[in-house]
Amino acid sequence: MNIKEYMAARRDYFDSKLKNFLPNPDSCPEVLLQAMEYSLLAGGKRLRPILVLAAAESCGGRLEAAMPPAAALEMVHTYSLIHDDLPAMDDDDLRRGKPSCHKVFGEGMAVLAGDALLTHAFSVAAQGVNEDPLRRLAVVAELAKAAGPIGMVAGQAMDIAGFGLMDASQVNHIHRCKTGALIKGAVRMGAIIAGAGAKVVHGLTQYADSLGLAYQIVDDILDVTETSQQLGKNPGSDEKKGKQTFVTVHGLEGARIMAAAETARAVQALQALGGDYSLLQDLAEYIGRRYA
Amino acid sequence: MNIKEYMAARRDYFDSKLKNFLPNPDSCPEVLLQAMEYSLLAGGKRLRPILVLAAAESCGGRLEAAMPPAAALEMVHTYSLIHDDLPAMDDDDLRRGKPSCHKVFGEGMAVLAGDALLTHAFSVAAQGVNEDPLRRLAVVAELAKAAGPIGMVAGQAMDIAGFGLMDASQVNHIHRCKTGALIKGAVRMGAIIAGAGAKVVHGLTQYADSLGLAYQIVDDILDVTETSQQLGKNPGSDEKKGKQTFVTVHGLEGARIMAAAETARAVQALQALGGDYSLLQDLAEYIGRRYA
Repeated sequence: MNIKEYMAARRDYFDSKLKNFLPNPDSCPEVLLQAMEYSLLAGGKRLRPILVLAAAESCGGRLEAAMPPAAALEMVHTYSLIHDDLPAMDDDDLRRGKPSCHKVFGEGMAVLAGDALLTHAFSVAAQGVNEDPLRRLAVVAELAKAAGPIGMVAGQAMDIAGFGLMDASQVNHIHRCKTGALIKGAVRMGAIIAGAGAKVVHGLTQYADSLGLAYQIVDDILDVTETSQQLGKNPGSDEKKGKQTFVTVHGLEGARIMAAAETARAVQALQALGGDYSLLQDLAEYIGRRYA
Repeated sequence: MNIKEYMAARRDYFDSKLKNFLPNPDSCPEVLLQAMEYSLLAGGKRLRPILVLAAAESCGGRLEAAMPPAAALEMVHTYSLIHDDLPAMDDDDLRRGKPSCHKVFGEGMAVLAGDALLTHAFSVAAQGVNEDPLRRLAVVAELAKAAGPIGMVAGQAMDIAGFGLMDASQVNHIHRCKTGALIKGAVRMGAIIAGAGAKVVHGLTQYADSLGLAYQIVDDILDVTETSQQLGKNPGSDEKKGKQTFVTVHGLEGARIMAAAETARAVQALQALGGDYSLLQDLAEYIGRRYA
Protein backbone atom coordinates (compact mmCIF):
# COMPACT_ATOMS: atom_id res chain seq x y z
CA MET A 1 0.00 0.00 0.00
CA ASN A 2 1.60 3.28 -1.06
CA ILE A 3 1.06 6.48 0.89
CA LYS A 4 -1.84 7.73 -1.24
CA GLU A 5 -3.61 4.41 -0.77
CA TYR A 6 -2.85 4.48 2.97
CA MET A 7 -4.32 7.98 3.28
CA ALA A 8 -7.43 7.03 1.31
CA ALA A 9 -7.92 3.92 3.46
CA ARG A 10 -7.54 5.81 6.75
CA ARG A 11 -9.75 8.61 5.51
CA ASP A 12 -12.48 6.11 4.67
CA TYR A 13 -12.06 4.42 8.05
CA PHE A 14 -12.25 7.76 9.84
CA ASP A 15 -15.27 8.96 7.86
CA SER A 16 -17.10 5.68 8.48
CA LYS A 17 -16.72 6.08 12.27
CA LEU A 18 -16.96 9.85 12.70
CA LYS A 19 -20.75 10.09 12.90
CA ASN A 20 -20.74 7.81 15.98
CA PHE A 21 -19.00 10.56 17.93
CA LEU A 22 -21.64 13.24 17.32
CA PRO A 23 -24.03 14.08 20.18
CA ASN A 24 -27.19 12.05 20.67
CA PRO A 25 -29.89 13.48 18.35
CA ASP A 26 -32.52 12.94 21.05
CA SER A 27 -30.76 15.43 23.32
CA CYS A 28 -29.44 17.96 20.78
CA PRO A 29 -31.68 20.52 18.99
CA GLU A 30 -32.16 19.47 15.38
CA VAL A 31 -31.01 22.72 13.76
CA LEU A 32 -27.84 22.81 15.88
CA LEU A 33 -26.96 19.22 14.99
CA GLN A 34 -27.64 19.97 11.31
CA ALA A 35 -25.26 22.94 11.39
CA MET A 36 -22.59 20.84 13.13
CA GLU A 37 -22.97 17.96 10.68
CA TYR A 38 -23.10 20.27 7.67
CA SER A 39 -19.55 21.40 8.35
CA LEU A 40 -18.10 18.31 10.02
CA LEU A 41 -19.34 15.80 7.48
CA ALA A 42 -18.53 17.96 4.45
CA GLY A 43 -15.50 15.87 3.64
CA GLY A 44 -12.18 17.64 3.58
CA LYS A 45 -8.79 15.97 3.43
CA ARG A 46 -8.97 14.70 7.03
CA LEU A 47 -5.25 15.30 7.27
CA ARG A 48 -5.23 15.92 11.03
CA PRO A 49 -7.15 12.77 12.01
CA ILE A 50 -5.04 10.74 9.58
CA LEU A 51 -1.96 12.07 11.40
CA VAL A 52 -3.45 11.01 14.76
CA LEU A 53 -4.11 7.51 13.42
CA ALA A 54 -0.71 7.25 11.69
CA ALA A 55 1.20 8.43 14.78
CA ALA A 56 -0.70 5.96 16.97
CA GLU A 57 -0.05 3.08 14.56
CA SER A 58 3.62 4.01 14.29
CA CYS A 59 3.86 3.79 18.09
CA GLY A 60 2.19 0.38 18.22
CA GLY A 61 -1.28 1.66 19.17
CA ARG A 62 -4.63 0.38 17.95
CA LEU A 63 -6.67 2.36 15.40
CA GLU A 64 -9.81 1.96 17.49
CA ALA A 65 -8.18 3.59 20.53
CA ALA A 66 -6.96 6.49 18.38
CA MET A 67 -10.42 7.26 16.99
CA PRO A 68 -11.67 9.43 19.90
CA PRO A 69 -8.65 11.79 19.77
CA ALA A 70 -8.83 11.81 15.95
CA ALA A 71 -12.55 12.68 15.95
CA ALA A 72 -12.03 15.31 18.66
CA LEU A 73 -9.26 16.97 16.69
CA GLU A 74 -11.30 17.10 13.47
CA MET A 75 -14.18 18.68 15.43
CA VAL A 76 -11.79 21.35 16.71
CA HIS A 77 -10.42 21.93 13.22
CA THR A 78 -13.95 22.21 11.80
CA TYR A 79 -15.06 24.68 14.50
CA SER A 80 -12.04 26.84 13.68
CA LEU A 81 -13.04 26.92 9.99
CA ILE A 82 -16.64 27.88 10.86
CA HIS A 83 -15.57 30.76 13.10
CA ASP A 84 -12.79 31.79 10.70
CA ASP A 85 -15.29 32.13 7.86
CA LEU A 86 -17.59 34.48 9.84
CA PRO A 87 -18.06 38.02 8.48
CA ALA A 88 -16.36 39.41 11.61
CA MET A 89 -13.31 37.25 10.85
CA ASP A 90 -12.15 36.24 7.35
CA ASP A 91 -15.59 36.63 5.77
CA ASP A 92 -15.40 33.65 3.41
CA ASP A 93 -18.50 32.39 1.60
CA LEU A 94 -17.10 29.11 0.33
CA ARG A 95 -15.59 26.20 2.27
CA ARG A 96 -14.85 22.62 1.22
CA GLY A 97 -16.65 23.39 -2.02
CA LYS A 98 -19.93 24.42 -0.36
CA PRO A 99 -21.38 27.65 1.05
CA SER A 100 -19.88 28.42 4.49
CA CYS A 101 -21.86 27.43 7.59
CA HIS A 102 -23.07 30.98 8.30
CA LYS A 103 -24.31 31.41 4.70
CA VAL A 104 -26.63 28.44 5.23
CA PHE A 105 -27.58 28.65 8.92
CA GLY A 106 -27.03 32.34 9.71
CA GLU A 107 -24.28 33.96 11.73
CA GLY A 108 -25.70 33.28 15.20
CA MET A 109 -26.21 29.57 14.57
CA ALA A 110 -22.73 29.33 12.97
CA VAL A 111 -21.17 30.81 16.12
CA LEU A 112 -23.08 28.24 18.17
CA ALA A 113 -22.26 25.31 15.85
CA GLY A 114 -18.57 26.18 16.26
CA ASP A 115 -18.93 26.50 20.03
CA ALA A 116 -20.77 23.18 20.14
CA LEU A 117 -18.14 21.32 18.09
CA LEU A 118 -15.32 22.76 20.21
CA THR A 119 -17.01 21.82 23.48
CA HIS A 120 -18.16 18.41 22.31
CA ALA A 121 -14.61 17.63 21.15
CA PHE A 122 -13.58 17.51 24.81
CA SER A 123 -16.39 15.08 25.61
CA VAL A 124 -15.06 12.87 22.86
CA ALA A 125 -11.40 13.24 23.87
CA ALA A 126 -12.24 12.32 27.48
CA GLN A 127 -14.01 9.11 26.49
CA GLY A 128 -12.30 6.20 24.87
CA VAL A 129 -11.89 2.50 24.49
CA ASN A 130 -8.45 2.91 25.97
CA GLU A 131 -9.04 2.43 29.66
CA ASP A 132 -5.91 4.18 30.90
CA PRO A 133 -7.33 7.45 32.32
CA LEU A 134 -3.90 9.10 32.47
CA ARG A 135 -3.52 8.84 28.70
CA ARG A 136 -7.00 10.22 28.12
CA LEU A 137 -6.33 13.09 30.52
CA ALA A 138 -3.07 13.81 28.67
CA VAL A 139 -4.97 13.83 25.37
CA VAL A 140 -7.46 16.35 26.77
CA ALA A 141 -4.64 18.59 28.02
CA GLU A 142 -2.83 18.32 24.67
CA LEU A 143 -5.96 19.21 22.70
CA ALA A 144 -6.67 22.26 24.88
CA LYS A 145 -3.07 23.43 24.62
CA ALA A 146 -2.91 22.98 20.84
CA ALA A 147 -6.24 24.68 20.16
CA GLY A 148 -6.29 27.41 22.81
CA PRO A 149 -4.82 30.84 23.59
CA ILE A 150 -1.19 29.68 23.39
CA GLY A 151 -1.89 27.59 20.27
CA MET A 152 -4.27 27.94 17.36
CA VAL A 153 -6.35 30.81 18.77
CA ALA A 154 -3.13 32.74 19.45
CA GLY A 155 -2.31 32.49 15.74
CA GLN A 156 -5.77 33.63 14.72
CA ALA A 157 -5.64 36.57 17.13
CA MET A 158 -2.27 37.72 15.78
CA ASP A 159 -3.63 37.28 12.27
CA ILE A 160 -6.74 39.44 12.72
CA ALA A 161 -5.02 41.97 14.98
CA GLY A 162 -3.53 42.96 11.63
CA PHE A 163 0.03 44.02 12.15
CA GLY A 164 0.16 45.05 8.49
CA LEU A 165 3.53 44.34 6.92
CA MET A 166 5.27 41.63 8.89
CA ASP A 167 8.76 40.30 8.61
CA ALA A 168 9.59 36.68 7.88
CA SER A 169 9.91 35.63 11.53
CA GLN A 170 6.49 37.07 12.42
CA VAL A 171 4.80 35.27 9.52
CA ASN A 172 6.58 32.11 10.63
CA HIS A 173 5.42 32.55 14.25
CA ILE A 174 1.77 33.18 13.32
CA HIS A 175 1.64 30.09 11.16
CA ARG A 176 3.39 27.93 13.75
CA CYS A 177 0.42 28.78 15.99
CA LYS A 178 -2.43 29.05 13.52
CA THR A 179 -1.84 25.84 11.57
CA GLY A 180 1.18 24.22 13.17
CA ALA A 181 -0.27 23.84 16.66
CA LEU A 182 -3.06 21.48 15.60
CA ILE A 183 -0.75 19.42 13.38
CA LYS A 184 1.72 19.09 16.24
CA GLY A 185 -1.20 18.25 18.53
CA ALA A 186 -2.40 15.56 16.10
CA VAL A 187 0.94 13.74 16.10
CA ARG A 188 1.40 14.09 19.87
CA MET A 189 -2.15 12.93 20.67
CA GLY A 190 -1.64 9.84 18.49
CA ALA A 191 1.65 9.04 20.23
CA ILE A 192 0.18 9.69 23.71
CA ILE A 193 -2.90 7.50 23.26
CA ALA A 194 -0.63 4.69 22.02
CA GLY A 195 1.43 4.99 25.18
CA ALA A 196 4.68 6.20 23.57
CA GLY A 197 7.53 7.10 25.93
CA ALA A 198 8.85 10.60 26.52
CA LYS A 199 11.80 10.25 24.11
CA VAL A 200 9.56 9.17 21.23
CA VAL A 201 6.99 11.90 21.97
CA HIS A 202 9.82 14.44 21.96
CA GLY A 203 11.20 13.25 18.62
CA LEU A 204 7.76 13.13 17.03
CA THR A 205 7.12 16.67 18.30
CA GLN A 206 10.16 17.88 16.35
CA TYR A 207 8.91 15.97 13.31
CA ALA A 208 5.46 17.52 13.64
CA ASP A 209 6.85 21.04 14.09
CA SER A 210 8.59 20.85 10.72
CA LEU A 211 5.68 19.04 9.10
CA GLY A 212 3.23 21.74 10.21
CA LEU A 213 5.39 24.46 8.77
CA ALA A 214 5.88 22.57 5.49
CA TYR A 215 2.12 22.05 5.29
CA GLN A 216 1.38 25.77 5.71
CA ILE A 217 4.02 26.81 3.17
CA VAL A 218 2.53 24.40 0.63
CA ASP A 219 -0.94 25.74 1.47
CA ASP A 220 0.23 29.27 0.70
CA ILE A 221 1.71 28.04 -2.60
CA LEU A 222 -1.54 26.29 -3.55
CA ASP A 223 -3.53 29.42 -2.68
CA VAL A 224 -1.90 31.19 -5.64
CA THR A 225 -1.47 28.27 -8.06
CA GLU A 226 -4.74 26.32 -7.83
CA THR A 227 -8.28 26.97 -9.01
CA SER A 228 -11.34 27.42 -6.80
CA GLN A 229 -12.54 23.94 -7.72
CA GLN A 230 -9.26 22.30 -6.74
CA LEU A 231 -9.13 24.20 -3.45
CA GLY A 232 -12.82 24.00 -2.47
CA LYS A 233 -12.52 27.64 -1.44
CA ASN A 234 -11.80 30.91 -3.20
CA PRO A 235 -8.18 31.03 -4.43
CA GLY A 236 -5.93 34.05 -3.99
CA SER A 237 -8.03 35.07 -1.01
CA ASP A 238 -4.99 35.62 1.24
CA GLU A 239 -3.46 37.97 -1.30
CA LYS A 240 -6.72 39.87 -1.80
CA LYS A 241 -6.99 40.50 1.93
CA GLY A 242 -3.44 41.86 1.95
CA LYS A 243 -2.34 39.02 4.21
CA GLN A 244 1.32 38.18 4.49
CA THR A 245 2.01 34.58 3.53
CA PHE A 246 5.16 32.54 2.90
CA VAL A 247 4.69 33.33 -0.81
CA THR A 248 4.28 37.10 -0.38
CA VAL A 249 7.31 37.18 1.92
CA HIS A 250 9.64 34.72 0.17
CA GLY A 251 8.24 34.49 -3.38
CA LEU A 252 6.95 31.31 -5.02
CA GLU A 253 10.38 29.79 -5.63
CA GLY A 254 11.62 30.73 -2.16
CA ALA A 255 8.53 29.14 -0.62
CA ARG A 256 9.14 25.92 -2.58
CA ILE A 257 12.70 25.73 -1.31
CA MET A 258 11.50 26.31 2.28
CA ALA A 259 8.86 23.60 2.00
CA ALA A 260 11.49 21.11 0.82
CA ALA A 261 13.87 22.10 3.63
CA GLU A 262 11.21 21.70 6.33
CA THR A 263 10.16 18.35 4.91
CA ALA A 264 13.78 17.18 5.05
CA ARG A 265 14.00 18.38 8.66
CA ALA A 266 10.86 16.39 9.55
CA VAL A 267 12.42 13.26 8.07
CA GLN A 268 15.68 13.84 9.95
CA ALA A 269 13.78 14.04 13.24
CA LEU A 270 12.34 10.57 12.55
CA GLN A 271 15.71 9.13 11.55
CA ALA A 272 17.25 10.44 14.79
CA LEU A 273 14.69 8.35 16.69
CA GLY A 274 15.72 5.04 15.14
CA GLY A 275 12.93 2.47 14.81
CA ASP A 276 10.53 2.20 11.89
CA TYR A 277 8.72 5.44 11.20
CA SER A 278 8.53 4.97 7.44
CA LEU A 279 4.79 5.63 7.48
CA LEU A 280 5.26 9.08 9.03
CA GLN A 281 8.20 9.71 6.69
CA ASP A 282 6.07 8.92 3.63
CA LEU A 283 3.33 11.20 4.97
CA ALA A 284 5.77 14.10 5.38
CA GLU A 285 7.17 13.61 1.91
CA TYR A 286 3.70 13.49 0.43
CA ILE A 287 2.49 16.59 2.29
CA GLY A 288 5.65 18.57 1.51
CA ARG A 289 5.25 17.93 -2.23
CA ARG A 290 1.51 18.39 -2.65
CA TYR A 291 2.12 21.36 -4.97
CA ALA A 292 4.32 19.39 -7.34
CA MET B 1 -20.87 33.19 59.25
CA ASN B 2 -24.27 33.70 57.58
CA ILE B 3 -24.83 32.84 53.92
CA LYS B 4 -24.13 36.35 52.61
CA GLU B 5 -20.84 36.42 54.49
CA TYR B 6 -20.00 32.92 53.23
CA MET B 7 -20.67 33.96 49.64
CA ALA B 8 -18.58 37.12 50.01
CA ALA B 9 -15.71 35.14 51.55
CA ARG B 10 -15.71 32.47 48.83
CA ARG B 11 -16.06 35.09 46.13
CA ASP B 12 -13.00 36.90 47.48
CA TYR B 13 -11.08 33.62 47.72
CA PHE B 14 -12.04 32.73 44.15
CA ASP B 15 -11.19 36.16 42.76
CA SER B 16 -7.81 36.16 44.53
CA LYS B 17 -6.84 32.85 42.84
CA LEU B 18 -8.52 33.18 39.45
CA LYS B 19 -5.73 35.08 37.70
CA ASN B 20 -3.32 32.19 38.37
CA PHE B 21 -5.33 30.05 35.98
CA LEU B 22 -5.01 32.35 32.98
CA PRO B 23 -2.58 31.39 30.20
CA ASN B 24 1.08 32.37 30.48
CA PRO B 25 1.42 35.95 29.16
CA ASP B 26 4.76 35.04 27.53
CA SER B 27 2.99 32.57 25.23
CA CYS B 28 -0.34 34.37 24.64
CA PRO B 29 -0.74 37.42 22.36
CA GLU B 30 -1.22 40.54 24.49
CA VAL B 31 -4.45 41.73 22.86
CA LEU B 32 -6.05 38.30 23.18
CA LEU B 33 -5.13 38.04 26.87
CA GLN B 34 -6.46 41.56 27.44
CA ALA B 35 -9.81 40.67 25.87
CA MET B 36 -10.01 37.46 27.96
CA GLU B 37 -9.13 39.29 31.19
CA TYR B 38 -11.44 42.20 30.41
CA SER B 39 -14.46 39.90 30.57
CA LEU B 40 -13.23 37.27 33.03
CA LEU B 41 -11.94 39.68 35.66
CA ALA B 42 -14.90 42.08 35.37
CA GLY B 43 -16.37 40.81 38.62
CA GLY B 44 -19.84 39.35 38.47
CA LYS B 45 -21.53 37.43 41.22
CA ARG B 46 -19.32 34.33 40.77
CA LEU B 47 -22.35 32.23 41.60
CA ARG B 48 -21.21 29.20 39.59
CA PRO B 49 -17.70 28.93 41.08
CA ILE B 50 -19.15 29.53 44.57
CA LEU B 51 -21.46 26.56 43.92
CA VAL B 52 -18.47 24.41 42.89
CA LEU B 53 -16.62 25.35 46.07
CA ALA B 54 -19.69 24.93 48.29
CA ALA B 55 -20.56 21.52 46.82
CA ALA B 56 -16.96 20.36 47.27
CA GLU B 57 -16.84 21.59 50.88
CA SER B 58 -20.19 19.98 51.62
CA CYS B 59 -18.78 16.65 50.41
CA GLY B 60 -15.65 16.95 52.53
CA GLY B 61 -13.36 18.21 49.75
CA ARG B 62 -10.65 20.83 49.99
CA LEU B 63 -11.16 24.33 48.58
CA GLU B 64 -7.78 24.21 46.85
CA ALA B 65 -8.70 21.05 44.93
CA ALA B 66 -12.00 22.61 43.86
CA MET B 67 -10.36 25.74 42.43
CA PRO B 68 -9.45 24.31 38.97
CA PRO B 69 -13.03 23.15 38.24
CA ALA B 70 -14.38 26.41 39.67
CA ALA B 71 -12.07 28.54 37.51
CA ALA B 72 -12.80 26.41 34.45
CA LEU B 73 -16.54 26.80 34.92
CA GLU B 74 -16.32 30.57 35.32
CA MET B 75 -14.26 30.73 32.10
CA VAL B 76 -16.98 28.79 30.29
CA HIS B 77 -19.69 31.04 31.74
CA THR B 78 -17.74 34.14 30.69
CA TYR B 79 -17.17 32.85 27.14
CA SER B 80 -20.92 32.24 26.85
CA LEU B 81 -21.64 35.85 27.85
CA ILE B 82 -19.12 37.20 25.32
CA HIS B 83 -20.59 35.19 22.44
CA ASP B 84 -24.18 35.84 23.62
CA ASP B 85 -23.58 39.60 23.50
CA LEU B 86 -22.35 39.52 19.86
CA PRO B 87 -24.42 41.43 17.28
CA ALA B 88 -25.21 38.12 15.53
CA MET B 89 -26.64 36.80 18.80
CA ASP B 90 -28.35 38.93 21.50
CA ASP B 91 -26.58 42.16 20.47
CA ASP B 92 -26.04 43.57 23.96
CA ASP B 93 -23.75 46.56 24.53
CA LEU B 94 -23.53 46.38 28.29
CA ARG B 95 -22.36 43.54 30.53
CA ARG B 96 -21.41 43.48 34.20
CA GLY B 97 -21.72 47.27 34.15
CA LYS B 98 -19.16 47.78 31.36
CA PRO B 99 -19.26 47.87 27.56
CA SER B 100 -19.46 44.31 26.14
CA CYS B 101 -16.24 42.66 24.97
CA HIS B 102 -16.96 43.23 21.27
CA LYS B 103 -17.66 46.95 21.87
CA VAL B 104 -14.12 47.32 23.22
CA PHE B 105 -12.09 44.79 21.20
CA GLY B 106 -14.17 44.38 18.03
CA GLU B 107 -16.31 41.46 16.95
CA GLY B 108 -13.54 39.25 15.58
CA MET B 109 -11.42 39.49 18.73
CA ALA B 110 -14.51 38.92 20.90
CA VAL B 111 -15.26 35.69 19.03
CA LEU B 112 -11.64 34.62 19.62
CA ALA B 113 -11.58 35.69 23.28
CA GLY B 114 -14.65 33.50 23.83
CA ASP B 115 -13.09 30.61 21.92
CA ALA B 116 -9.89 31.02 23.93
CA LEU B 117 -11.67 31.03 27.32
CA LEU B 118 -13.73 27.97 26.36
CA THR B 119 -10.69 26.01 25.19
CA HIS B 120 -8.46 27.10 28.06
CA ALA B 121 -11.15 26.05 30.53
CA PHE B 122 -10.44 22.44 29.57
CA SER B 123 -6.71 22.91 30.19
CA VAL B 124 -7.60 24.17 33.64
CA ALA B 125 -10.15 21.41 34.34
CA ALA B 126 -7.63 18.73 33.34
CA GLN B 127 -4.97 20.02 35.71
CA GLY B 128 -5.32 20.04 39.46
CA VAL B 129 -3.78 19.58 42.83
CA ASN B 130 -6.01 16.58 43.23
CA GLU B 131 -3.89 13.75 41.95
CA ASP B 132 -6.69 11.30 41.19
CA PRO B 133 -6.82 11.34 37.37
CA LEU B 134 -10.22 9.63 37.27
CA ARG B 135 -11.82 12.53 39.13
CA ARG B 136 -10.17 15.07 36.86
CA LEU B 137 -11.29 13.16 33.78
CA ALA B 138 -14.85 13.04 35.17
CA VAL B 139 -14.70 16.81 35.75
CA VAL B 140 -13.64 17.35 32.13
CA ALA B 141 -16.47 15.14 30.86
CA GLU B 142 -18.98 16.91 33.12
CA LEU B 143 -17.88 20.36 31.95
CA ALA B 144 -18.13 19.38 28.27
CA LYS B 145 -21.56 17.84 28.79
CA ALA B 146 -22.91 20.82 30.74
CA ALA B 147 -21.57 23.42 28.31
CA GLY B 148 -21.97 21.66 24.97
CA PRO B 149 -24.61 20.71 22.38
CA ILE B 150 -26.79 18.78 24.83
CA GLY B 151 -26.36 21.43 27.54
CA MET B 152 -25.88 25.18 27.48
CA VAL B 153 -25.32 25.55 23.73
CA ALA B 154 -28.49 23.54 23.10
CA GLY B 155 -30.42 26.15 25.11
CA GLN B 156 -28.84 29.02 23.21
CA ALA B 157 -29.57 27.37 19.87
CA MET B 158 -33.25 26.86 20.75
CA ASP B 159 -33.35 30.44 22.00
CA ILE B 160 -32.02 32.06 18.82
CA ALA B 161 -33.79 29.63 16.50
CA GLY B 162 -36.74 31.75 17.61
CA PHE B 163 -39.77 29.56 17.88
CA GLY B 164 -41.84 32.70 18.52
CA LEU B 165 -44.60 32.08 21.01
CA MET B 166 -43.67 29.11 23.15
CA ASP B 167 -45.68 27.25 25.72
CA ALA B 168 -44.65 26.89 29.35
CA SER B 169 -42.90 23.54 28.88
CA GLN B 170 -40.75 24.86 26.01
CA VAL B 171 -39.66 27.91 28.01
CA ASN B 172 -38.86 25.58 30.88
CA HIS B 173 -36.82 23.25 28.64
CA ILE B 174 -34.79 26.07 27.07
CA HIS B 175 -33.87 27.48 30.44
CA ARG B 176 -33.04 24.08 31.88
CA CYS B 177 -30.39 23.92 29.15
CA LYS B 178 -29.34 27.55 28.80
CA THR B 179 -28.82 28.38 32.47
CA GLY B 180 -29.62 25.19 34.35
CA ALA B 181 -26.98 23.01 32.70
CA LEU B 182 -24.02 25.05 34.01
CA ILE B 183 -25.52 25.35 37.49
CA LYS B 184 -26.08 21.61 37.58
CA GLY B 185 -22.55 21.14 36.24
CA ALA B 186 -21.17 23.40 38.98
CA VAL B 187 -22.69 21.35 41.79
CA ARG B 188 -21.76 18.02 40.18
CA MET B 189 -18.16 19.09 39.45
CA GLY B 190 -17.73 20.16 43.08
CA ALA B 191 -19.08 16.84 44.32
CA ILE B 192 -16.99 14.83 41.84
CA ILE B 193 -13.69 16.53 42.63
CA ALA B 194 -14.38 15.94 46.34
CA GLY B 195 -14.84 12.24 45.63
CA ALA B 196 -18.55 12.02 46.54
CA GLY B 197 -20.24 8.66 45.94
CA ALA B 198 -22.88 7.98 43.31
CA LYS B 199 -25.83 8.35 45.71
CA VAL B 200 -24.70 11.79 46.88
CA VAL B 201 -23.95 12.95 43.32
CA HIS B 202 -27.43 11.82 42.30
CA GLY B 203 -29.13 13.67 45.17
CA LEU B 204 -27.11 16.82 44.56
CA THR B 205 -28.04 16.64 40.87
CA GLN B 206 -31.73 16.80 41.80
CA TYR B 207 -30.95 19.71 44.13
CA ALA B 208 -29.07 21.52 41.36
CA ASP B 209 -31.82 20.92 38.80
CA SER B 210 -34.34 22.76 40.97
CA LEU B 211 -31.81 25.39 42.00
CA GLY B 212 -30.99 26.19 38.36
CA LEU B 213 -34.64 26.63 37.50
CA ALA B 214 -35.26 28.81 40.58
CA TYR B 215 -32.25 30.91 39.62
CA GLN B 216 -33.52 31.52 36.10
CA ILE B 217 -37.04 32.36 37.25
CA VAL B 218 -35.62 34.93 39.69
CA ASP B 219 -33.41 36.28 36.91
CA ASP B 220 -36.47 36.82 34.73
CA ILE B 221 -38.21 38.57 37.64
CA LEU B 222 -35.21 40.85 38.22
CA ASP B 223 -35.04 41.66 34.49
CA VAL B 224 -38.36 43.50 34.81
CA THR B 225 -38.05 44.86 38.38
CA GLU B 226 -34.46 46.11 38.66
CA THR B 227 -32.61 49.09 37.21
CA SER B 228 -29.71 48.95 34.75
CA GLN B 229 -27.29 49.84 37.57
CA GLN B 230 -28.49 47.03 39.81
CA LEU B 231 -28.34 44.50 36.97
CA GLY B 232 -25.09 45.62 35.32
CA LYS B 233 -26.87 45.16 32.01
CA ASN B 234 -29.84 46.73 30.26
CA PRO B 235 -33.11 45.82 32.03
CA GLY B 236 -36.21 44.68 30.22
CA SER B 237 -34.01 43.49 27.37
CA ASP B 238 -35.71 40.08 27.20
CA GLU B 239 -39.10 41.71 26.85
CA LYS B 240 -37.87 44.18 24.22
CA LYS B 241 -36.57 41.30 22.11
CA GLY B 242 -39.95 39.59 22.36
CA LYS B 243 -38.39 36.67 24.22
CA GLN B 244 -40.57 34.37 26.23
CA THR B 245 -39.54 34.29 29.88
CA PHE B 246 -41.06 32.83 33.04
CA VAL B 247 -42.57 36.28 33.67
CA THR B 248 -44.11 36.69 30.21
CA VAL B 249 -45.55 33.15 30.40
CA HIS B 250 -46.66 33.01 34.05
CA GLY B 251 -46.87 36.67 35.12
CA LEU B 252 -44.84 38.25 37.91
CA GLU B 253 -46.82 36.69 40.74
CA GLY B 254 -46.91 33.29 39.05
CA ALA B 255 -43.13 33.43 38.58
CA ARG B 256 -42.64 34.26 42.26
CA ILE B 257 -44.72 31.26 43.28
CA MET B 258 -42.73 29.01 40.91
CA ALA B 259 -39.39 30.27 42.27
CA ALA B 260 -40.50 29.47 45.81
CA ALA B 261 -41.71 25.99 44.78
CA GLU B 262 -38.45 25.12 43.01
CA THR B 263 -36.43 26.36 45.98
CA ALA B 264 -38.46 24.13 48.28
CA ARG B 265 -37.86 21.21 45.93
CA ALA B 266 -34.10 21.86 46.03
CA VAL B 267 -34.16 21.78 49.83
CA GLN B 268 -36.20 18.57 49.84
CA ALA B 269 -33.59 16.87 47.65
CA LEU B 270 -30.94 17.71 50.24
CA GLN B 271 -33.08 16.51 53.13
CA ALA B 272 -33.68 13.19 51.36
CA LEU B 273 -29.89 12.69 51.34
CA GLY B 274 -29.49 12.95 55.10
CA GLY B 275 -26.17 14.31 56.32
CA ASP B 276 -25.35 18.00 56.79
CA TYR B 277 -26.00 20.01 53.66
CA SER B 278 -27.06 23.17 55.48
CA LEU B 279 -24.60 25.25 53.45
CA LEU B 280 -26.20 24.21 50.15
CA GLN B 281 -29.66 24.68 51.70
CA ASP B 282 -28.82 28.24 52.74
CA LEU B 283 -27.47 28.94 49.25
CA ALA B 284 -30.68 27.72 47.61
CA GLU B 285 -32.84 29.77 49.95
CA TYR B 286 -30.74 32.85 49.31
CA ILE B 287 -30.77 32.40 45.52
CA GLY B 288 -34.51 31.66 45.40
CA ARG B 289 -35.33 34.87 47.27
CA ARG B 290 -32.94 37.31 45.62
CA TYR B 291 -35.89 39.33 44.30
CA ALA B 292 -37.42 39.84 47.74
